[in-house]
Amino acid sequence: MRVFSTETMADACRRNKITSPGKASIMDCAKLSSYLEKTTGISVIHMELGSPGFAPNKVGVEAEKAALDAGVGSGYPPTDGLPVLKEASSRFVRAFLDVDLEPRYHIPTTGSMLGAFGALAAASQCFPTRSKVLVLEPSFSANKQQMAILGIPWKGMEAATLRSSGLEESLRRELSSGEYAALMYSNPNNPSWMCFTQEELEVVARVAEETGVIVIEDLAYFCMDLRGAGYGTPWEAPYPPTVARYGGRYILLMSASKIFSYAGQRIGVMCVSPSLYDERFPALAGRYGGLGIFGLTLTGSILDMITSGATASTQWGLAAMMDRSCEGSLDFVADVSEYGRRAARMKEIFLRHGFGITYPRDAAGPIGDGFFFTLSYPGLDSAALVDELLAYGVSSVSLEKMGSSLNGVRICSSRIRSEQFDLLEQRMAAFEEDHPRV
Amino acid sequence: MRVFSTETMADACRRNKITSPGKASIMDCAKLSSYLEKTTGISVIHMELGSPGFAPNKVGVEAEKAALDAGVGSGYPPTDGLPVLKEASSRFVRAFLDVDLEPRYHIPTTGSMLGAFGALAAASQCFPTRSKVLVLEPSFSANKQQMAILGIPWKGMEAATLRSSGLEESLRRELSSGEYAALMYSNPNNPSWMCFTQEELEVVARVAEETGVIVIEDLAYFCMDLRGAGYGTPWEAPYPPTVARYGGRYILLMSASKIFSYAGQRIGVMCVSPSLYDERFPALAGRYGGLGIFGLTLTGSILDMITSGATASTQWGLAAMMDRSCEGSLDFVADVSEYGRRAARMKEIFLRHGFGITYPRDAAGPIGDGFFFTLSYPGLDSAALVDELLAYGVSSVSLEKMGSSLNGVRICSSRIRSEQFDLLEQRMAAFEEDHPRV
Repeated sequence: MRVFSTETMADACRRNKITSPGKASIMDCAKLSSYLEKTTGISVIHMELGSPGFAPNKVGVEAEKAALDAGVGSGYPPTDGLPVLKEASSRFVRAFLDVDLEPRYHIPTTGSMLGAFGALAAASQCFPTRSKVLVLEPSFSANKQQMAILGIPWKGMEAATLRSSGLEESLRRELSSGEYAALMYSNPNNPSWMCFTQEELEVVARVAEETGVIVIEDLAYFCMDLRGAGYGTPWEAPYPPTVARYGGRYILLMSASKIFSYAGQRIGVMCVSPSLYDERFPALAGRYGGLGIFGLTLTGSILDMITSGATASTQWGLAAMMDRSCEGSLDFVADVSEYGRRAARMKEIFLRHGFGITYPRDAAGPIGDGFFFTLSYPGLDSAALVDELLAYGVSSVSLEKMGSSLNGVRICSSRIRSEQFDLLEQRMAAFEEDHPRV
Repeated sequence: MRVFSTETMADACRRNKITSPGKASIMDCAKLSSYLEKTTGISVIHMELGSPGFAPNKVGVEAEKAALDAGVGSGYPPTDGLPVLKEASSRFVRAFLDVDLEPRYHIPTTGSMLGAFGALAAASQCFPTRSKVLVLEPSFSANKQQMAILGIPWKGMEAATLRSSGLEESLRRELSSGEYAALMYSNPNNPSWMCFTQEELEVVARVAEETGVIVIEDLAYFCMDLRGAGYGTPWEAPYPPTVARYGGRYILLMSASKIFSYAGQRIGVMCVSPSLYDERFPALAGRYGGLGIFGLTLTGSILDMITSGATASTQWGLAAMMDRSCEGSLDFVADVSEYGRRAARMKEIFLRHGFGITYPRDAAGPIGDGFFFTLSYPGLDSAALVDELLAYGVSSVSLEKMGSSLNGVRICSSRIRSEQFDLLEQRMAAFEEDHPRV
């Protein structure tokens, strides 16, 4: 039996100015499900928002409080970030990614969201005749909204399909059209949790180099592919795959939101490859004045003009968390591995009630249990599945909104509470009963 | 005698990749003067950066620490801001501006810089056939850099000139061309410290209404015009002039940076007029999907896609400072009035050594002593005056970079230290001696 009637849902949509759950943005899905809970008193199991499920990391909280007491709140933070965080990030990237990048190339941002926005703005404005961005799908829908703000043209290509048909050839064919300024993807992938292997990223780096395209690699779920030996021991292999291993023009986006449960404080770091940072682009000089040096334009003429630097205390907080991680006294992978355990329990329930994993595998085998996974149900398209799941008290996000050509939803494992697994079992049993498979 | 030789200055410019001080941005001027201090050991009197000269407000610091302890750092802040700050801002605007705006219309931003960026993006994308912004000059140069990022066309008009030739006619002639989406100014004005009167803003409101143009009013120096009876007593007249008193389509930008010495923490609030917030724009719907409602697009599709909300602890900090101000136990105008005393001493020294105030008056009389003022010197254009002042150990910013048609520099009174007034006297005496007036 449904948890919310058709009338209740229609009324909730109308009052929240939303067409339907399946057509709504992630934030609107969150708003809608909260509204339903508040007006009916019935709890929704929240799987829509990729928000941390734990308290913010204590190391960061204490470091922020100390910085506030020290008076960091008064002066504008430097355009390219506080040295303490630039240095910590440089150590962190060496310790956990085995990539050697001087502090100068690490730029604190108001969350990785601003990192992505700044990276897209700068990369798309470097070349006089090409500004398009190739997005490897499925993908984080916010990046496309960012491009809508900036008026950047983009095209999506399904990574899973490329994999089987020859990643290298497909990428080369597309990127050599001469329209593209940048290529963007997340690894692990949001929403599917597929991961590119080191070999695949070597291909990406090679084709990008050949075609002069800037690679934007979003590492929001850094070290969170929990399969196998496991990442996250400082200064020790294995290290997560990254395009940075091959040099060239790249931007990495690091976020404190997930690995340190720090989403509310909005702090991340972008790492720009030295060759890109120091390159001169006449198109940037033409637009912003100065010499058109990528790194200086990005920090001084773009990021600083959007937020005037990242909140000072949060820079101290993230620096402390990175430093403690490098010393081995803060094990952020152990902290987030609870997401994997929750995902495994959730998958078991969904699969037993007729659901399938929309993106079940990557080149390394079956996808791991982590922060996200994808679900399909026979006979329901993406929007209909979101609508139906919400009617049974489960809030999710449509894969159609995330550039997927497949039918399904994104599920986030972070916010389910331990007492909700029994409720999930009951609700999905009812869902299965009411939705006979054809 | 010069403090820095021609060779020292040329070398410093080369090493900082700056053409000349007079052609540099504010941040580059700050970088250059710091570099000179570090390499020569000679102190520069910093008048370039509009950065607070006091410790961050304690009320904000303590409220942030309490919020961090309460765990606000984990979840993403709501798209349109935390209720605690929306409510505090609504009270604050009523208490100090006598404008009644429900909490819903108050949107926390990562500093007023992001407020301005979001306002410019949204306002310029509302109308299918007009996107241009009219800037009342002189103005804060960062806003033009923001428009360069977004590709927004703009035009500057000198407010001082408009004043004498008929503000209403000039504005109407320009804005009725059908090209403009928005009109932008700061009040008090950065850099000149001229203030529009209530009567002038009535004219602005009337012409904007007639021509369908959105007004963006930057109140970064809120209540800091220290002339006369004085603003800043909660719930009591006099109140500062604002375009909001006349309704219509407006966006106010409020900043914690100056009034609470809180620049490092990056927090502000934008206030959108109800009629604008709720208006539907098909052009916004076309670009972002949804219904094209201004306020929901601005928060959900623009601001949230740039920073995913404003840092949670800073929202609690600003809310506490606003609340205490409304209760009368935090007197922010008394706190910042020290800037006025410093400005008066600085002006006396400069004027005695042959300088003049570039923008000496507004419609209310001689400009007040506050955070900024402008200086000219006979025979030197803007860039040359910046260069020469720095050679004599005083760092400033060119008015040419701030849209002025007059020759001069912007001086900020915030960072001079009490022991530096004697040094300023000596240096300006030397300046006068070496620059005989023609």
